[in-house]
Amino acid sequence: MDYKPIDSKDLEFFRSWVEPNRFSTGESNLTLHSRDESLHGPHVPEAVLWPLEAGEVSEALKYCNARRIPVTGWGVGSSLEGNPLPVAGGLVMNFSRMNRILEVRSGDFQADLEPGVVYKDLNERLRHEGLFFPPDPGASATIGGMIANNASGTRTVHYGSTRDYVLQLEIVLADGQIICIGTRASKSSSGYDLVNLFVGSEGTLGLFVKATIKLVGYPGEYSAAVVSFESVKAAGQTVFEIMRAGMDPAALELLDKASVELLNREVNFGLPPNPALLMEFHGPDRKYLGEVIELVKEMAEENGGREFSSGLGREERDRIWHARHKIGEITNRVHPGTKRMILDVAVPAGAFPEMIALSEKTIKDIGLPGYIVSHAGDGNLHVVVLGKQGDPKEWAAIDELNDTIVRRALELGGTATGEHGVGLGKRGFMKLEHRDALEWMQKIKRLFDPHGILNPGKIF
Amino acid sequence: MDYKPIDSKDLEFFRSWVEPNRFSTGESNLTLHSRDESLHGPHVPEAVLWPLEAGEVSEALKYCNARRIPVTGWGVGSSLEGNPLPVAGGLVMNFSRMNRILEVRSGDFQADLEPGVVYKDLNERLRHEGLFFPPDPGASATIGGMIANNASGTRTVHYGSTRDYVLQLEIVLADGQIICIGTRASKSSSGYDLVNLFVGSEGTLGLFVKATIKLVGYPGEYSAAVVSFESVKAAGQTVFEIMRAGMDPAALELLDKASVELLNREVNFGLPPNPALLMEFHGPDRKYLGEVIELVKEMAEENGGREFSSGLGREERDRIWHARHKIGEITNRVHPGTKRMILDVAVPAGAFPEMIALSEKTIKDIGLPGYIVSHAGDGNLHVVVLGKQGDPKEWAAIDELNDTIVRRALELGGTATGEHGVGLGKRGFMKLEHRDALEWMQKIKRLFDPHGILNPGKIF
Repeated sequence: MDYKPIDSKDLEFFRSWVEPNRFSTGESNLTLHSRDESLHGPHVPEAVLWPLEAGEVSEALKYCNARRIPVTGWGVGSSLEGNPLPVAGGLVMNFSRMNRILEVRSGDFQADLEPGVVYKDLNERLRHEGLFFPPDPGASATIGGMIANNASGTRTVHYGSTRDYVLQLEIVLADGQIICIGTRASKSSSGYDLVNLFVGSEGTLGLFVKATIKLVGYPGEYSAAVVSFESVKAAGQTVFEIMRAGMDPAALELLDKASVELLNREVNFGLPPNPALLMEFHGPDRKYLGEVIELVKEMAEENGGREFSSGLGREERDRIWHARHKIGEITNRVHPGTKRMILDVAVPAGAFPEMIALSEKTIKDIGLPGYIVSHAGDGNLHVVVLGKQGDPKEWAAIDELNDTIVRRALELGGTATGEHGVGLGKRGFMKLEHRDALEWMQKIKRLFDPHGILNPGKIF
Repeated sequence: MDYKPIDSKDLEFFRSWVEPNRFSTGESNLTLHSRDESLHGPHVPEAVLWPLEAGEVSEALKYCNARRIPVTGWGVGSSLEGNPLPVAGGLVMNFSRMNRILEVRSGDFQADLEPGVVYKDLNERLRHEGLFFPPDPGASATIGGMIANNASGTRTVHYGSTRDYVLQLEIVLADGQIICIGTRASKSSSGYDLVNLFVGSEGTLGLFVKATIKLVGYPGEYSAAVVSFESVKAAGQTVFEIMRAGMDPAALELLDKASVELLNREVNFGLPPNPALLMEFHGPDRKYLGEVIELVKEMAEENGGREFSSGLGREERDRIWHARHKIGEITNRVHPGTKRMILDVAVPAGAFPEMIALSEKTIKDIGLPGYIVSHAGDGNLHVVVLGKQGDPKEWAAIDELNDTIVRRALELGGTATGEHGVGLGKRGFMKLEHRDALEWMQKIKRLFDPHGILNPGKIF
């Protein structure tokens, strides 16, 4: 695609209707939008616009579409595959000021949101109504980013991904047209499902300006447990058995020995220095949860699980999950001068033990600092590997590790990205994963965005 | 679109590679494929093909696409909106001989199926593994039909629609190309979600020849209950309160007085002659279910519920659901000389009591035999109205009732079809429901099927 650089006439256009504090070409603002939390970038945009309403988004897109100026949506830049980086320059549309919770209809278990709402703020607001929005990506992501990447996290094993919660979207298309897709009914068989087409499309088909999402009531009771294992393989086998037995955990996370030791050292995690499973169960009452935990304990111990600790109170539970969410950040701190690659694949349940074993072996083989942290219950595996900045040999080894694990996941019927999206990092695997279906994705892209102005260079 | 009638040269082509017992132009076979369970039709095809494998489906589509011969997929004809009727003639592709359960991977909670598998047969096969495929449309539908219409039913309130269970599809496109979409991982953020685009597309974008679906383990315990109410309004209010309180029923059905009386008379249903709720709860153990049932009983009684009967055994439960599924059939038998219109809308939970009240009023207003039978827990409402065959006045009144209820459902944020699909019957409401998004559905249709040979005349 041929894109046109933003010139003085374009600047004049934007400045004619946007207040100065919501449109910037200043270097510090451009730099702030040139990197996310991934390895990728910097990719510096030419201008940043903070829209306040759908009409402004439409106006900007109409203009940019006519002039072939790239437009890339931006939440808070917490993504992990370079998803919102403006690789072709152009305009970044920062939705942080469109962050209103427009309406909560608790009787319908629904809320209407602007894309800039931070999901933690949303859950804070919903707490008083006994409701919450379950997908929990860990980072302080916006609803917009979560929908764009179909984000998920520790609770997805029971509650599903962001995709499972989006009922209706108001979308601005490349040429500025605003359409509303989906329904507020809890189910529908009415025409093509456009909502799911847009969820996970990473801002390449349109930019949404309003979402109606489903909410969930708080469970009657929570219970958390941790257990240690001699080997990652034994922990992986236990995960498979817990899932196979229908124990329905609300979270089931696997940490390898290196991750546990890291957390012990850095945040006094206090577990034995061995691979561990962190679990949470939600249920109607304590008695039921007690029975579930007892069964899970037996399964763990049959696989050599030790120091099974359950019945953890709220404070202890929060501490564990907080620590779990901090791993990425901590690895960067304890390995100064490095960058981190976070691998993200997902496989069917039966393939999980093999994937865990392969991950452990490949980390050992390359001899670099590596950590396995996995949403194990849904077969989603993350491997964090640290390489020295600018060391081509280390990075070649890391690339090869990534390549080996992703290819094996695909062979086992899995996916190249369980939750981080394709962005820049996973483009190279799309043909292998989707084969001839990829060309149909590209045709859909061209249908909705014939000039390719929306988040160019991503997915494909 | 300009379609070409099937001529002798076309027949020669098909007969050159299909055995005579799998390709027919005989009148009785054509007639068998001219009607489903709806009011629509007859629409007689020109030929019927029973393919055995993907290659044959591809061969047939490639040929028909080149020659502009319409092709319409067919399961068992149990649909309720004319969805598989060959309104433009052409070829009907009957998938009943592609009915193999190809593989059950119980460790993954997955199965690979051909489209002609009847879901009841599937569940029979899965019972021995402690697994089942939850969407329960009542009729003996095929998996193909269920996926094409995104079918759902009594269990959807807890377990979701067919859509929620489709992981991967092998699809033959209009020009004969075979693509595989989706992944076997339980979650993915890899590229555009084509699976959900095809689920519910009613055979207008492609014909699928293989599906990988998710399965679910049997719950620990079941419990069913029934309760009667003085008014449909009180029953509807109770539904709202049960859902609002997060009681999570596995089924929550509302029958009006006429439906209960009909079942009492015809199948000795044995309930008081009043509106009723039929409920089922799934849970880990009897104690938990006992507590849930107690809470639900209180809610029902606060709304005037009477003769609450719970703890129904397996036999009694099966009897209730069997009777519930028979209502449509029975109405036809007890009103000879009539045809039945089955309305199908869904609304957000908060709008359900109003919709129930409106349905009751409109039935009373037109003075024809009418029955309200609703998957109340997910806001899905069916109204069955019987009109004399060939009586224009009665049918004008029925059309108006349908129009009134669908329009109000749309105004309340609902959908024109909760589970029966658009087919022929709901086309007229598509513009009202989807507004400008409808044109994008049509663009997608043209992208995948530029000559419009796939199930023409449906949805749009």
